[in-house]
Amino acid sequence: MKIDGKPYRTIWPVDGAVEIIDQTRLPHVFATVRLTTMEEAATAIADMWVRGAPLIGATAAYGMALAMAAGASDAALDAAHDRLYATRPTAVNLRWALADMVETLRPLPPPERAARAWSRAAEIADADVATNHAIGVHGLALFRALWEGKGRPERLDILTHCNAGWLATVDWGTALAPIYMAHDAGIPVHVWVDETRPRNQGASLTAWELGRHGVPHTVIADNAGGHLMQHGLVDACIVGTDRTTATGDVCNKIGTYLKALAAFDTGVPFYVALPSPTIDWTIADGLAEIPIEQRSAAEQSHVSGLTADGRVETVRLVPEGSACANYAFDVTPARLVTALVTERGACDASRAGLLALFPERSPA
Amino acid sequence: MKIDGKPYRTIWPVDGAVEIIDQTRLPHVFATVRLTTMEEAATAIADMWVRGAPLIGATAAYGMALAMAAGASDAALDAAHDRLYATRPTAVNLRWALADMVETLRPLPPPERAARAWSRAAEIADADVATNHAIGVHGLALFRALWEGKGRPERLDILTHCNAGWLATVDWGTALAPIYMAHDAGIPVHVWVDETRPRNQGASLTAWELGRHGVPHTVIADNAGGHLMQHGLVDACIVGTDRTTATGDVCNKIGTYLKALAAFDTGVPFYVALPSPTIDWTIADGLAEIPIEQRSAAEQSHVSGLTADGRVETVRLVPEGSACANYAFDVTPARLVTALVTERGACDASRAGLLALFPERSPA
Repeated sequence: MKIDGKPYRTIWPVDGAVEIIDQTRLPHVFATVRLTTMEEAATAIADMWVRGAPLIGATAAYGMALAMAAGASDAALDAAHDRLYATRPTAVNLRWALADMVETLRPLPPPERAARAWSRAAEIADADVATNHAIGVHGLALFRALWEGKGRPERLDILTHCNAGWLATVDWGTALAPIYMAHDAGIPVHVWVDETRPRNQGASLTAWELGRHGVPHTVIADNAGGHLMQHGLVDACIVGTDRTTATGDVCNKIGTYLKALAAFDTGVPFYVALPSPTIDWTIADGLAEIPIEQRSAAEQSHVSGLTADGRVETVRLVPEGSACANYAFDVTPARLVTALVTERGACDASRAGLLALFPERSPA
Repeated sequence: MKIDGKPYRTIWPVDGAVEIIDQTRLPHVFATVRLTTMEEAATAIADMWVRGAPLIGATAAYGMALAMAAGASDAALDAAHDRLYATRPTAVNLRWALADMVETLRPLPPPERAARAWSRAAEIADADVATNHAIGVHGLALFRALWEGKGRPERLDILTHCNAGWLATVDWGTALAPIYMAHDAGIPVHVWVDETRPRNQGASLTAWELGRHGVPHTVIADNAGGHLMQHGLVDACIVGTDRTTATGDVCNKIGTYLKALAAFDTGVPFYVALPSPTIDWTIADGLAEIPIEQRSAAEQSHVSGLTADGRVETVRLVPEGSACANYAFDVTPARLVTALVTERGACDASRAGLLALFPERSPA
């Protein structure tokens, strides 16, 4: 998407190196970083200069290319895989991208591996862009129908939670892809951006990327969305997902369930955008079967921001001696989800709905 | 309640002056302030050194006493009323307490007014304590029944939102009164404290007062409560209210509605504690009839906390150019409320429930 008029992806090759945006410095500082070695790519993943499953996968793929450029023996191939895999071993896309790279490169003679690694990494990045573009097209159709059904009002209010934007992918994003397309198509979208405590991905990343592309938006406390929906100030919600069950339950950033409840209570459509690899076809009951990660209590007790004199400072919010807990995700039951929006189209949040789009997953 | 073992109220007379806790410095600094003039009392209210409707009312009453001690003419009486009223003209308890003081004092000869003003202010403060104590007794019965009904588990988990604690009243608080009583009675309460963005009254004030009294508690993001309820980690919710309709709709801090939805969806009791003066008998539909205040966007875009080297610093959370909105309250429909807990007992959140406790409000 655009940053102040100039098109960007979140990762791009330049002269035998790879450039990324250092997302740890957003929203207060926009800085790109050039990665010239596999080790630098590993650091970029481990230290979360890049985040979001698809972008992590693409960065790992380019990390393999950087490794092959420095030396393409079988031993180097295995060492690069293992080093990059160790950065964030629970990331599914990371594992998948690294396995793909090894599978692609190992059959080749070492002298051919570097060139193929660069081209395969680019294919992986382009495939993510294509998937998200397709999600955007299907979501745009839903937004357009809403807008036209309401008589083309001067403002179409969309609420989103966390960051499922282009910063989390190679381009477009998942939940934000239909928003960017609607904006670019002249539909007057305005986005209510949930702050998304405790890590504030909405207030920092979503607000930043929408603002840089020029999409009107307003940051609100996570507490506010229900009130807005009660008063007719939200036309639809759209969020991403970390994991979706075969029955349509949605595991996403903590607080998603509360917004889905409010949407259901007030008759507001609640959409979930997802690339199909996030569907876990082995799980039927999200609430019972998906373990919820607890992260550091310090993310809740402390927060970072920009001081009046331009320094980034971390401050403590809670009194000494008070414990904090930090649950990272929750599960929104399928009954609260209006539709899942995948790269193949939108469907009911149900096993039947998903199988209609992905018939190859039907039991034999 | 107690601060590290020593009993406190939020306001107390000392040697012809009045002392308060400067709540703007909590939770990082505990400091008391001596108010020696009516003007200082007005500043304490206007600058929110004291907050919470009952405490504002008591502070205004003591402000009238300070004024009468300095000069008790009719003109001084009116001037003190008008000065104190102007501090926060929308506060119902402020208006009520000032009217009560003027009505009490005007019939008296000026030389008798100061002594009566001190005693009347003390009566107003004591009446608030008695009301909250009664709410606590009735709420305690509910918590005890829950705890015993569950076979006296090792931990009774109560979730609360915002600060309806003793810091907002003269003592006990409203929603927290039953929690303090349960703790003091040996029921092993543990409190999930919603951070309560954007002003963080939970993370700062509720966590501080529970901690100082010794009540086990954990601060969580406002996003987390639904997940905790889904997993059986909340036995009951209890919150305060700024305004309750004659039909039992509850206007309280923004985000209360979302917690009530989750409690309803998961079968967790949702209690609202209220002194009866917060019931607005003229309103039947909270959603349609109660206007929701919008506060400064800066409360959402910026936050204050303690730096590692012990300074209180304000930092900006959102990118330059992103708008913020700050809705202060929302309305929880009566259908989501398990019971209202008043100083006369608990009742259904309905007109019939309220009138059974307050029959004097029945239409003639």
